[in-house]
Amino acid sequence: MQRTLVKDAHNSTEPRDSILLQGWVRTRRDSKTFSFVELNDGSCLKGMQIIVQNTLPDYEALMHKAGTGASISVGGKLVASQGAGQKWEVQADTFEIIGEADASYPLQKKGHTLEFLREIAHLRPRSNLFGAVFRVRSRLAYAIHQFFQERGYFYVHTPIITASDCEGAGEMFRVSTLDTDKPPRAEDGSVDFASDFFARQSFLTVSGQLEAETFACALSNVYTFGPTFRAENSNTSRHAAEFWMIEPESAFLDLFGNMDLAESFVKYLVADVREHCAADLEFFGKFVDKELNARLDFVLQRPFQRCSYTEAIEILEKSGRKWEHPVKWGDNMQSEHERFLAEEHFKCPVTVYDYPKTLKPFYMRVNDDGKTVRAMDVLVPGIGEIIGGSQREERLDVLRENMAAHGLAEKDYWWYLDLRKYGTVPHSGFGMGFERMLMFVTGVANIRDVIPFARTPGSADF
Amino acid sequence: MQRTLVKDAHNSTEPRDSILLQGWVRTRRDSKTFSFVELNDGSCLKGMQIIVQNTLPDYEALMHKAGTGASISVGGKLVASQGAGQKWEVQADTFEIIGEADASYPLQKKGHTLEFLREIAHLRPRSNLFGAVFRVRSRLAYAIHQFFQERGYFYVHTPIITASDCEGAGEMFRVSTLDTDKPPRAEDGSVDFASDFFARQSFLTVSGQLEAETFACALSNVYTFGPTFRAENSNTSRHAAEFWMIEPESAFLDLFGNMDLAESFVKYLVADVREHCAADLEFFGKFVDKELNARLDFVLQRPFQRCSYTEAIEILEKSGRKWEHPVKWGDNMQSEHERFLAEEHFKCPVTVYDYPKTLKPFYMRVNDDGKTVRAMDVLVPGIGEIIGGSQREERLDVLRENMAAHGLAEKDYWWYLDLRKYGTVPHSGFGMGFERMLMFVTGVANIRDVIPFARTPGSADF
Repeated sequence: MQRTLVKDAHNSTEPRDSILLQGWVRTRRDSKTFSFVELNDGSCLKGMQIIVQNTLPDYEALMHKAGTGASISVGGKLVASQGAGQKWEVQADTFEIIGEADASYPLQKKGHTLEFLREIAHLRPRSNLFGAVFRVRSRLAYAIHQFFQERGYFYVHTPIITASDCEGAGEMFRVSTLDTDKPPRAEDGSVDFASDFFARQSFLTVSGQLEAETFACALSNVYTFGPTFRAENSNTSRHAAEFWMIEPESAFLDLFGNMDLAESFVKYLVADVREHCAADLEFFGKFVDKELNARLDFVLQRPFQRCSYTEAIEILEKSGRKWEHPVKWGDNMQSEHERFLAEEHFKCPVTVYDYPKTLKPFYMRVNDDGKTVRAMDVLVPGIGEIIGGSQREERLDVLRENMAAHGLAEKDYWWYLDLRKYGTVPHSGFGMGFERMLMFVTGVANIRDVIPFARTPGSADF
Repeated sequence: MQRTLVKDAHNSTEPRDSILLQGWVRTRRDSKTFSFVELNDGSCLKGMQIIVQNTLPDYEALMHKAGTGASISVGGKLVASQGAGQKWEVQADTFEIIGEADASYPLQKKGHTLEFLREIAHLRPRSNLFGAVFRVRSRLAYAIHQFFQERGYFYVHTPIITASDCEGAGEMFRVSTLDTDKPPRAEDGSVDFASDFFARQSFLTVSGQLEAETFACALSNVYTFGPTFRAENSNTSRHAAEFWMIEPESAFLDLFGNMDLAESFVKYLVADVREHCAADLEFFGKFVDKELNARLDFVLQRPFQRCSYTEAIEILEKSGRKWEHPVKWGDNMQSEHERFLAEEHFKCPVTVYDYPKTLKPFYMRVNDDGKTVRAMDVLVPGIGEIIGGSQREERLDVLRENMAAHGLAEKDYWWYLDLRKYGTVPHSGFGMGFERMLMFVTGVANIRDVIPFARTPGSADF
């Protein structure tokens, strides 16, 4: 007999004489003549209540083994439930133990700390919280593909291993097959990277943007969605060494078109997860972040405000606030400023644009004032920056000046310059940190808790 | 005015008084009173024919600049085409050069070798062949997500950086932030990996399977789709150091269920690409591989045959063939054997299962004969193996024996063993190399030509 997933059983429109469920015991309550067993198979938050009568052969022995964490296979009838809180329950005709859970099973009792659950990252998806997080993670990833594919964007796998550094800065991981203990040496005694696997120094990518630009200049509209890496030694709740990033790049699109795309994108993702992960989001709203749903509504319902960096600085200066980090024109905004703009001043998501040239990388398009560039950051309540992007410099001569000013050698970017030499076009793009968006839609506060197996300084378990 | 993509213009159901197209000049033919300009924007294979009358202001100067590779913006009318081969063409009212192409533009002439085009991987997506390849790549990736999401599978991002080695073998890339020239040393003089970023030796993953198993044992049905790495020094047309892999893992599924899933998967992908990339596939059938469409039909129309490894060896032995690599029970099959089975003996895709234990990794389920394991390979005509998978060993004691026999330390796999200790379940999965599947559906023969920027020994350009 074919297995039915618990999610599909809950969605049944009529009783069924015969159904097969397979999953893990979450809880069991025994009464005199029967037991309630909650079977969860991870297909949805809610388990299925199984009623096992004590008339079943081997009842005592079976129930003894059917502790929390045991895997079971249950045949029976799907019937309307008398109890509150569920439409259907299953009356067991057969009840098989597939695998017992050893008495040391760490998820037997509730109320473990998130820190402890990180240490058992291989088991935590069996908990309500992490089951919900990783179902939403899967759906959000799919919604990202849907959004772009429906709009004619092509998915590009930009390389993970790279010899170039998109930002001209960035702390990178080295990728190598050289013997660490005794690396080969050149005649002058330096390490001979010419004998490394790729015949040069190579690293893990920090962004696929430059490569995505080459594809946008051929296929018009493209996006990347892949892992990116930072070898920053920062142990915060918002940083991981390995995370996933989405980077659309659009030819013939200016900064304002880019803002429109970013706004549609954020709204689409929030609406999609709302629709497809309703039960999981309800759980987060109850147990993780009571303001979650109000915050998501906030994003869905209002058009994003737009304000130039110069205006934003004026607003901050005139606010009368005491800032932990005082801010003036030319400074980077800190989280406190970004959150003030979104949460208190505009009271909605806000896109800040035209940042000082000195704060931004070489590839952003220079404005006519010569002082600012066509950069944009989308700030949302509760999180701050969720998207950063720009219109790219498409003028070959200006790009060359910018590179020189940033101390970059043209020979390292010959192919990037070629895009401006052969049929250059105005084009724009942005990057969204996937985990940051996931934290935004779930309310989960630590990035370690939205990644299956997080990589952070000192930690690469599993 | 809003830009229309060429793809959407071709699909128009009626003429339009006003349309804006933006893209790159592919070809231009001049007659006495007008020019034909073919505009391609990468949204589809076929460009749009633009008719520019010589009465347009600055006609001569514009046409002088509108050489192959130049970017243009054209406003005009979409009208029924008189010419053969297209339904619509555009009569230009305005014609703007956005960016000229320098005279050195390497794609001006046709007939470049694939080798040369690899050297200009940043420009080759502007050619017919590579535009088609990367559109199909994008669609195939999306179809993979659709297939699994429609079936209730959750997408899991297994880690890229790992301290463990799935196969117990595999040549891996080291990931490190240690100073290559002067690494820190422990007291005994060895490299002190405790001071590396992750406080241990770490590598790029060769498979996400073991981590995916932990999620299947919580969410039931999961899949991965991400980059994987091999530091093998093999310069063949089928190997790359960085490639993408799909790995579904299903709880409560045995080897035969796994075969069913693999068969549906391959057929779904072929049918999807057929439907959504018809023009690109027609191009491949004409210019890349004349037998492509027959081969794809072959896969779609017939049920896959199944045959045990033992039967397969008998077939090969009785075939009367002279093999380059003679084969007997206990040997790995070579490409010539796999292709003989699929192309000549069964004349359809074939799933070979129950391989000798000695040929396979520690995690495969041992059969009652003690000699074979529940492994399977799906072989397709023209390619050979396209999928490899197995039912996993769910019995704790047998798994421990297998690990000991493979010389693996239990302490390195404590979390993997935990899955068998706490509610173990029969489960199965497989891996498909994304690029191999892409080569199968496009007929492109070299893996370097289906990856945006390929990473191979000695090569990590762009």
